Amino acid sequence: MKVIDGGISSPRGFKAAGIHCGIKRRKRDLALLFSVNPATCAMVYTQNKVKGAPLKVMMDRDPKRLQAFIINSGNANTLTGERGINDAKEMVGGVASSLGIGDDLVGVVSTGIIGRFLPMENVMVGISHIVGKLDSGRRNDVEAAQAIMTTDTVIKEAACEITLEDGTRVIIGGMAKGSGMISPSMRSLHATTLSFITTDASLSPGFDGKWQDIMDSSFNQVDVDGDQSTNDMSVLLANGMAGGMSADDSDAFWDGVKHVAKMLAKQIAMDGEGATKLISVLVRGARSTNDARKAAKAIVSSNLVKTAIFGSDPNYGRILCAVGYSGAEMVPEKMNLFMGADGTMIPIYEQGEPLIQTCGTGEAPLKELLKKQEIHITVDIGLGDSFAEAWGCDLSYEYVKINAEYTT
Amino acid sequence: MKVIDGGISSPRGFKAAGIHCGIKRRKRDLALLFSVNPATCAMVYTQNKVKGAPLKVMMDRDPKRLQAFIINSGNANTLTGERGINDAKEMVGGVASSLGIGDDLVGVVSTGIIGRFLPMENVMVGISHIVGKLDSGRRNDVEAAQAIMTTDTVIKEAACEITLEDGTRVIIGGMAKGSGMISPSMRSLHATTLSFITTDASLSPGFDGKWQDIMDSSFNQVDVDGDQSTNDMSVLLANGMAGGMSADDSDAFWDGVKHVAKMLAKQIAMDGEGATKLISVLVRGARSTNDARKAAKAIVSSNLVKTAIFGSDPNYGRILCAVGYSGAEMVPEKMNLFMGADGTMIPIYEQGEPLIQTCGTGEAPLKELLKKQEIHITVDIGLGDSFAEAWGCDLSYEYVKINAEYTT
Repeated sequence: MKVIDGGISSPRGFKAAGIHCGIKRRKRDLALLFSVNPATCAMVYTQNKVKGAPLKVMMDRDPKRLQAFIINSGNANTLTGERGINDAKEMVGGVASSLGIGDDLVGVVSTGIIGRFLPMENVMVGISHIVGKLDSGRRNDVEAAQAIMTTDTVIKEAACEITLEDGTRVIIGGMAKGSGMISPSMRSLHATTLSFITTDASLSPGFDGKWQDIMDSSFNQVDVDGDQSTNDMSVLLANGMAGGMSADDSDAFWDGVKHVAKMLAKQIAMDGEGATKLISVLVRGARSTNDARKAAKAIVSSNLVKTAIFGSDPNYGRILCAVGYSGAEMVPEKMNLFMGADGTMIPIYEQGEPLIQTCGTGEAPLKELLKKQEIHITVDIGLGDSFAEAWGCDLSYEYVKINAEYTT
Repeated sequence: MKVIDGGISSPRGFKAAGIHCGIKRRKRDLALLFSVNPATCAMVYTQNKVKGAPLKVMMDRDPKRLQAFIINSGNANTLTGERGINDAKEMVGGVASSLGIGDDLVGVVSTGIIGRFLPMENVMVGISHIVGKLDSGRRNDVEAAQAIMTTDTVIKEAACEITLEDGTRVIIGGMAKGSGMISPSMRSLHATTLSFITTDASLSPGFDGKWQDIMDSSFNQVDVDGDQSTNDMSVLLANGMAGGMSADDSDAFWDGVKHVAKMLAKQIAMDGEGATKLISVLVRGARSTNDARKAAKAIVSSNLVKTAIFGSDPNYGRILCAVGYSGAEMVPEKMNLFMGADGTMIPIYEQGEPLIQTCGTGEAPLKELLKKQEIHITVDIGLGDSFAEAWGCDLSYEYVKINAEYTT
């Protein structure tokens, strides 16, 4: 696998564009993604029972192939009743007729404030303009990635090149957004992070079993604020332009997709609303992968862990407390805890005994490490061989500020 | 039921004391509760798998009668291994010998920072002193309530007088603490809020079925920060000093206990770390009480709801979003939402349609109401007859400050 400088239009045959159409005051708010041929697709949606209108439209259709995807930011088109459903369908229809393709080949999703109607006049004028802007290349990648941002402060992109077992070189590119209301739990056909991964590899329409596993080890392990959004959606589009073998069962290919998904997931955590630090958690020694995932996500989701990390405060009891209520099988007397940064991990707690106090090293070296920008936490549950990662961010004054004033 | 100005020693035969023994720097940190005769007891403990040493000691013993309870604040005696267990037992032994009663009649619990050993020398000297301070009356109530505080800014007390069906007048008094790491989920024999309720009513040792229901409609419906503590415990002591009938099946009595528990629960929410506002939620029209409880607790637990309320921001989509991921059965198109304060409730969302925007009243009147100190949210799920309440607080800059600097 080779990491490359690329984005959503890096795989052959994909084009993208991002413009301002007037949902937001000034910033880009409309993105279009396009493949020169209909691409096989897999999608996952939020499990929140309140779902945005575009998610309902897409889940009803349950598409196996898509050629274009229209995305707006600034307004989630959620809790907008029948009118919202019609607005989402009108967006699909507008893109389809502008591109001269069938409605069934156009996907739609929205992100932003909940409970307001889209300014459809602006959106439809935007759609008629954006089609002419479609192109591939880094500039278009970036503009599309900008156009899906809400409270994000930076764009999220990743890309890599993979050589399949038959020698075919395929490219995987991705973009994502997500900064608040981030605690996704996406399931196939039932998954506000938005993420889009494109590839020129060939996949058959029935490949989506692996997509769920990739979700569960990437986006679903990110937490900013514990709130599962109404509009989370993750999309994989494969247009086969690279030729060669089917990538359905290629380990190299799926490792590449997982890499791109994890890179995007970490970028979402790092850009969490108000975040000053990335919290990277590894839970190992669990009885099952599911247990490891639950424990890791509970740690990155804990407000008390988040605030302690914000304050560079070695209040590690809060970490073990979170494992305790995570639902993962655990016995405190078998657990080990390490914390650190920059490659230095300090043992904190070993099989029921706090080390920091008993071994006399004191908390000073740990406090210094906790001032770094990426904090690593490793928990060894001591019961089995399974492991999982999760990523979160600290909880800062800025988070409160952003969310106390979001609509105003 | 008559609400009275009282506390933990108001029921006949109960005494209390609260002193400073040197766990904290200056404030009271050791409380003792005493009944002139052994009282029937019911206890619930946190479901967190990481449990404080005193909780383990108590759960092992599973007492049916207690005559004294020793409580320290400033240190949770949690994640302290074998030494912590021995420390908790030493506290029990010290109280028992000072009072001249059996170890089996003495309860113990601790609250405060996790992962540090108790300064046992100070604690044991404190125990030898506190026994001489035991008394009943408002001064002792208050000192005991102060001694169990951690980041609490005010004491939590409630009391009422009930007339049983046979004319017996019984008193119910209570004290509680809890400000952070508050999202209790206490179960009988498996339940850091600490709460103590005393009564001079008579209860038989097997009465604790109703205690769980009271927990589930009071303390278990409070959320400050979503973190379920390692040391939550709730205790009911009934010493029968009022004479008269057994209160086991007295509706009047259990209504009184529920009243005291709810008053304490609301005080905990209102004094949540950094809180500037109380959020009182009523969910009605649910298919089951359990669904109503889940939905109500999800709303008060949402960081996005909490920050919106802090900012007096009518971002009500976040409320419906929380109901959507709560696990409660719901259909967005059947839901109704009201928000308000001071007895004025504004309809916001009705059966799938946002009212605020469509009816043209705008958000201004709602914004004004959201500046009040107690914000009411009512959700009608529209599917059944069950209802539940929950209480939370807003999430402020001060919460972050308190928790970023807790150990330092």
